[in-house]
Amino acid sequence: MAEGTASVKVYRGLRDIYFDRSRCTYIDGRAGDLRYRGYSIHDLAEHATFEETAWLLLHGDLPTRTALAEFDRKLKLARTLPPAIYDIIRLTKSGHPMDVLRTATSALASFDPDTADNSRPATLRKAVRLISQVPMIIAAHARMRQDQAPVPPARDLGHAANFLWMLKAEKPDDEAARLVDRDLVLHAEHGSNASSFTARVVTGTNANLHAAITAAIAALSGPAHGGAAEDVMKMAEEIGDPSRAGEYVRERRKAGDPVTGFGHRVYRVEDPRARHMRSGVERLSKEMGQPRWYEILQAVVQAMAPYARHGVNVNVDFYSGVVYYLLGIPRDLFVPIFAIGRVPGWVVQVLEQQENNILIRPLTLYDGPPGRTFIPIQQRPE
Amino acid sequence: MAEGTASVKVYRGLRDIYFDRSRCTYIDGRAGDLRYRGYSIHDLAEHATFEETAWLLLHGDLPTRTALAEFDRKLKLARTLPPAIYDIIRLTKSGHPMDVLRTATSALASFDPDTADNSRPATLRKAVRLISQVPMIIAAHARMRQDQAPVPPARDLGHAANFLWMLKAEKPDDEAARLVDRDLVLHAEHGSNASSFTARVVTGTNANLHAAITAAIAALSGPAHGGAAEDVMKMAEEIGDPSRAGEYVRERRKAGDPVTGFGHRVYRVEDPRARHMRSGVERLSKEMGQPRWYEILQAVVQAMAPYARHGVNVNVDFYSGVVYYLLGIPRDLFVPIFAIGRVPGWVVQVLEQQENNILIRPLTLYDGPPGRTFIPIQQRPE
Repeated sequence: MAEGTASVKVYRGLRDIYFDRSRCTYIDGRAGDLRYRGYSIHDLAEHATFEETAWLLLHGDLPTRTALAEFDRKLKLARTLPPAIYDIIRLTKSGHPMDVLRTATSALASFDPDTADNSRPATLRKAVRLISQVPMIIAAHARMRQDQAPVPPARDLGHAANFLWMLKAEKPDDEAARLVDRDLVLHAEHGSNASSFTARVVTGTNANLHAAITAAIAALSGPAHGGAAEDVMKMAEEIGDPSRAGEYVRERRKAGDPVTGFGHRVYRVEDPRARHMRSGVERLSKEMGQPRWYEILQAVVQAMAPYARHGVNVNVDFYSGVVYYLLGIPRDLFVPIFAIGRVPGWVVQVLEQQENNILIRPLTLYDGPPGRTFIPIQQRPE
Repeated sequence: MAEGTASVKVYRGLRDIYFDRSRCTYIDGRAGDLRYRGYSIHDLAEHATFEETAWLLLHGDLPTRTALAEFDRKLKLARTLPPAIYDIIRLTKSGHPMDVLRTATSALASFDPDTADNSRPATLRKAVRLISQVPMIIAAHARMRQDQAPVPPARDLGHAANFLWMLKAEKPDDEAARLVDRDLVLHAEHGSNASSFTARVVTGTNANLHAAITAAIAALSGPAHGGAAEDVMKMAEEIGDPSRAGEYVRERRKAGDPVTGFGHRVYRVEDPRARHMRSGVERLSKEMGQPRWYEILQAVVQAMAPYARHGVNVNVDFYSGVVYYLLGIPRDLFVPIFAIGRVPGWVVQVLEQQENNILIRPLTLYDGPPGRTFIPIQQRPE
């Protein structure tokens, strides 16, 4: 902390630094292993709904049928927004959906009866509300920016299906709902990623849950965290045909530019979440008579194969953007949908931080000018 | 990152971990030394205005008279809020001032012409606007929650005086304006404190400035970061008379409770900022015929003297809350006023992060259950 400590080690990006323990998510970046509460992401992606996964994350064990039914009932009852939130969405609707989501989520703090209560039961009550309110905000904004009225939630639909319903005012088909549900499961939690870490830093000051989630949304809005899904679709459009993928990749690599949807701070092999969306892209693009998109992506993967041994592999966002595109969802909603999935993960990180709280306050090493003599402005040369 | 790495070191709170370099602020916690851009906080507190200090922080050198006049002109021109922001403050006015400030600052993203532009010139333009808009939001909310109309900014007043004017609709006396101005200087920057660090984590994902500042406000709202000024005044009221300070301190220490306004993660001696507000409290409490407040605080300091050798010393918040109390400012505005001061510091941290950007993503050490076998819900026991 003193000048002249140039020999001190600086951990840029806090890479490989452990700042705390977590009982929630096991990630082995070398083996490509991901588990929520001890359960493999592959089992959860294949067999569990988002609601079931959210319960698992929040409570630490798989729910019984009764517990899940009760949780589901609470989530459905929580599908409601104060009228002022619709007004705020309308007033700010010209903004990017992530900016609007951040503003409206922050505003919920003025209406939640438990805002200032940081106890565990209150945090869990607020979590149920936020899980249900975040997709409502996103869908309402998507409608209102097109001068359409928000679609009231359907209390008979699951979380993913209800989101699609509120977005499009049509009952989604089962396959589409299942794919989005799976994507939410895959995005529900991922250790101390930048947005969850932000939520923990904010919680470290004993701020409330709305503050932590608002800040997490702020972090997720950055392209280096949440943005790849959007960019992959842009890349696929730019490539246009599978035969051009090789050339595209060669040119990017030659220019030293990264290829979108490849590489991850943690994984050195394929992101274990990727395969579940890959099968979705394959099925959906065939069903919709647009097999080209799947073929383009696979051609990119093939062209990238030489780099895989250096740890540059497909990440989860590589396929999910194309799924959303095929479902007719606007590109700037891809990251907000990531947020819908991540709410339970953020809450778990907040709960763990609160349990044994500590201010998270690292240091920067000073390398500015040495002490200087102050000259009052009256005597300062022009 | 793999299981069984129990031998790995966990740096809880990231205490003593350097995550990057900074050319802005030098802090020597053992010597009690604080410098902005090489200039001692003591010189700045005595001789520089908030506007001058903000320029110094943003540009790295003291401004010439011409540069400062130009900056001052820009700040005054930027004293304007979109009408929608007043609507949003009205809609959320029941919330805590920090929640409302966070929401309204976030909402500004929908109206700023440079929101999505993360270049340095755009960030500096947005910084000027945010420096002027943050106090407007706080003052407008303070008025509107009492069903009073917001007070239009006075373009002939400096930053601190204009804030007091917008808050009370009376021209503040010079001494009050000078004290608040000094408090803003003292709070303008402080290295990688929790809110500035939050701003850097959010910027690490390439999110926009409004996202970073909104998240910083979220972090500052926690009592462990911004809250002490509010609590010191509560403590002074509870003690009530200087003669009771000794007993109060003994009882707190016996119960193992900290005494508010003492201790800091970084300083092992008296916080160098404290003395400048101490003289303010002394003068103001005499002038206002309420010398008791200064006497109570000094009696607490005396009672705490035995602990000073263990590094538990007065911090900056110890005196500033009493200054605000004596100026008739509601207690829940003490932390928002801290935010007014800190905007330039947050922007500097964002600019430094953007210069050589990297995702800030530390790790948590897994200590949850080992791999478990998933049982589909249909076969799961009740």
